[in-house]
Amino acid sequence: MPATFRVGLLGHGTVGAAFAELLEARADAIVPVTGMRPELSGVLTRSRGDFGEILEQSDLIVEVMGGLEPAREYVLAAMRAGKHVVTANKQLLSQHGEELWACAREHAVQLRFEAAVAGVVPVVRVLQESLAAARIERVHGIVNGTTNYILTEMARGGLAYADALRQAQALGYAEADPSDDVTGRDAAAKMAILARLAFDTPVHIDQVRYEGIERITADDIAYADELGLGLKLIGTAERVGAGISVRVHPVFLYAAHPLASVHGPFNAVTVESATITEITMSGPGAGGPQTATAVLGDVISAMIPPATTPEATASLPIVEDVESGFYLHMEVADRPGVLAQIAELLGMQGASIKSVVQRGLGDNARLVMVLHPLLESRFYAALRLIGQLGFMRSPPRAIRVIDEEFT
Amino acid sequence: MPATFRVGLLGHGTVGAAFAELLEARADAIVPVTGMRPELSGVLTRSRGDFGEILEQSDLIVEVMGGLEPAREYVLAAMRAGKHVVTANKQLLSQHGEELWACAREHAVQLRFEAAVAGVVPVVRVLQESLAAARIERVHGIVNGTTNYILTEMARGGLAYADALRQAQALGYAEADPSDDVTGRDAAAKMAILARLAFDTPVHIDQVRYEGIERITADDIAYADELGLGLKLIGTAERVGAGISVRVHPVFLYAAHPLASVHGPFNAVTVESATITEITMSGPGAGGPQTATAVLGDVISAMIPPATTPEATASLPIVEDVESGFYLHMEVADRPGVLAQIAELLGMQGASIKSVVQRGLGDNARLVMVLHPLLESRFYAALRLIGQLGFMRSPPRAIRVIDEEFT
Repeated sequence: MPATFRVGLLGHGTVGAAFAELLEARADAIVPVTGMRPELSGVLTRSRGDFGEILEQSDLIVEVMGGLEPAREYVLAAMRAGKHVVTANKQLLSQHGEELWACAREHAVQLRFEAAVAGVVPVVRVLQESLAAARIERVHGIVNGTTNYILTEMARGGLAYADALRQAQALGYAEADPSDDVTGRDAAAKMAILARLAFDTPVHIDQVRYEGIERITADDIAYADELGLGLKLIGTAERVGAGISVRVHPVFLYAAHPLASVHGPFNAVTVESATITEITMSGPGAGGPQTATAVLGDVISAMIPPATTPEATASLPIVEDVESGFYLHMEVADRPGVLAQIAELLGMQGASIKSVVQRGLGDNARLVMVLHPLLESRFYAALRLIGQLGFMRSPPRAIRVIDEEFT
Repeated sequence: MPATFRVGLLGHGTVGAAFAELLEARADAIVPVTGMRPELSGVLTRSRGDFGEILEQSDLIVEVMGGLEPAREYVLAAMRAGKHVVTANKQLLSQHGEELWACAREHAVQLRFEAAVAGVVPVVRVLQESLAAARIERVHGIVNGTTNYILTEMARGGLAYADALRQAQALGYAEADPSDDVTGRDAAAKMAILARLAFDTPVHIDQVRYEGIERITADDIAYADELGLGLKLIGTAERVGAGISVRVHPVFLYAAHPLASVHGPFNAVTVESATITEITMSGPGAGGPQTATAVLGDVISAMIPPATTPEATASLPIVEDVESGFYLHMEVADRPGVLAQIAELLGMQGASIKSVVQRGLGDNARLVMVLHPLLESRFYAALRLIGQLGFMRSPPRAIRVIDEEFT
């Protein structure tokens, strides 16, 4: 029987409920990683639970209640009692971070907060650990999924701002009161935290200049499109001379910029440093299960210093035959019936043609096609037969194709 | 005086030399993070140093000598002596990983290997820590920078494979003997390691199917381009039914696929799981300073369990005025001299026009321009004056533009 690691949960909204469910579902899988089995020791909501009791019964406190008070008071009390804390509360950290971090150092407990910035995108961990030794020049990116969704819809559908916002609210990407997101204040809190980590300088949200997307028109986006530009709400924290600049603005990017292709409710953050050039990380920026996954990753890290790779607990068979799309390049004699015979051989193996290009005449005729995904064994069976057709001027060439939908 | 943390270095090639230099340069910055100052205790090369002596004088061993033996023997000996080990050796881990990880567990030391896969892109850390609790469905991506550079050049310049390879060698992206890279074997070793981490199943490199890029022609790439496809060497590790498939192949991707826009010697890895949708991480996949940064990140993590955010050690001033490019949207009366007057006011502040679109006539005339980067204070000074011009039909609208070159 592994020891139990007791987790007290403050808050039971979207993230809190998803965390409770995930913890239960993954508790057994966490044992080989940490040597302990995590278990909820208590849940505090507006209407039930007693903080003092939960604290006493917990090894670690997860704070996902949001807001400044009583979240601040509870987090401080937990650390003073020698408990680790994991929080997703960006407003709290961007206003009282120094007080909280000092308290964690003083009581030698961990205060982890991956979920406070960019959801499951591991930018906090990368800044604190992978790049702890790098001199960072700039951190910038898309750290608010709501506004990125709205801007994506304005660009794609030509929607007015108000219509795109209503659509985001209907889909649950924006809250009934969207001000924190659309004014840029949510992104500003996250950039204050990232700047603190990147530059070891205290940064309060009040020191972050921010502008939102409320005054952007569909017209701006359409004109800029003609100039090859797409609009994003970008947070930037960078060294400027002997100081730093931390800000959030709507910004146009040229299409080749890596952040220009981050669409919908996704987040993406680029960290730049002379020794590494840059690292970009992207993924879903919000959502209950995603944020809960980030919280749980922090809980696991707090449970043990990650010593090493755990023993292999599975022995899954290695599968040889998988499905692929295929590109098929054939040099053929230019005569009637060629395509029909090839299509028949493909059809016998269940292969279906997605697109075809035919080029050249006579001795130079080529047929290039892309097939929908099928089992590789079936494709290669068809390919062998196609190679034996009398009108093939050289062996057909095949290369796999990844055929997935992106929006 | 902080305590000293003694690091023994095995290997002094490109990565080893870069690591020694980086350790020296960043030693002071590491003190507030770990409470200790790291210091090289000895260096083993082919011609100098004694392993036994270095081991005795070290708290941690960095292995960047490469090859299977004596690297395996040294890593095992170090762990048996109770020392942590950081290695960048993907061939060693993909062939003897289980033996090494078991030894690390037995002796309760850390064996860290971020630099063995995708350089400074933190995929190992994310799989081991952030996503330790997630059920991973698939890990796939571009894990070999040499082949990605060659394919990028073949696509961009229409180069033949042999010419692109020669160019990669001239630039130091490919070695004199490039077989491990171009046959896909290097990528296969990395995918074996990632599959082990993602699925908790032992995976040996011999169980990874791999194909290289040696037989790809410029012709394939040109035809596929007409079909909207770009070619990448893709490593995949995924669940298939009750088993897993681990493989490396050249694969075509549609242009909207996130991996399609990873160019040159960069790496990118996507991790997919139902609870998180997906996380994508990208960055330089090789190079001495980059790999050395990943090694140093591992050294720091081994020095202490990352307890919490260290005290702020800097107090950099927050800079208010920074440079930006600008998009400028003006509704103007359609009369001669309009553009000249605007251009004069911009020029007085040092603003230079990059592109202009003019649309409409009479009461509907609009002038939209993009300006090269300049100090924001100077731009806004010009904007105020432009807003006062008699022919402006409404206040001008300004939005920032990020104007960086991408290849």
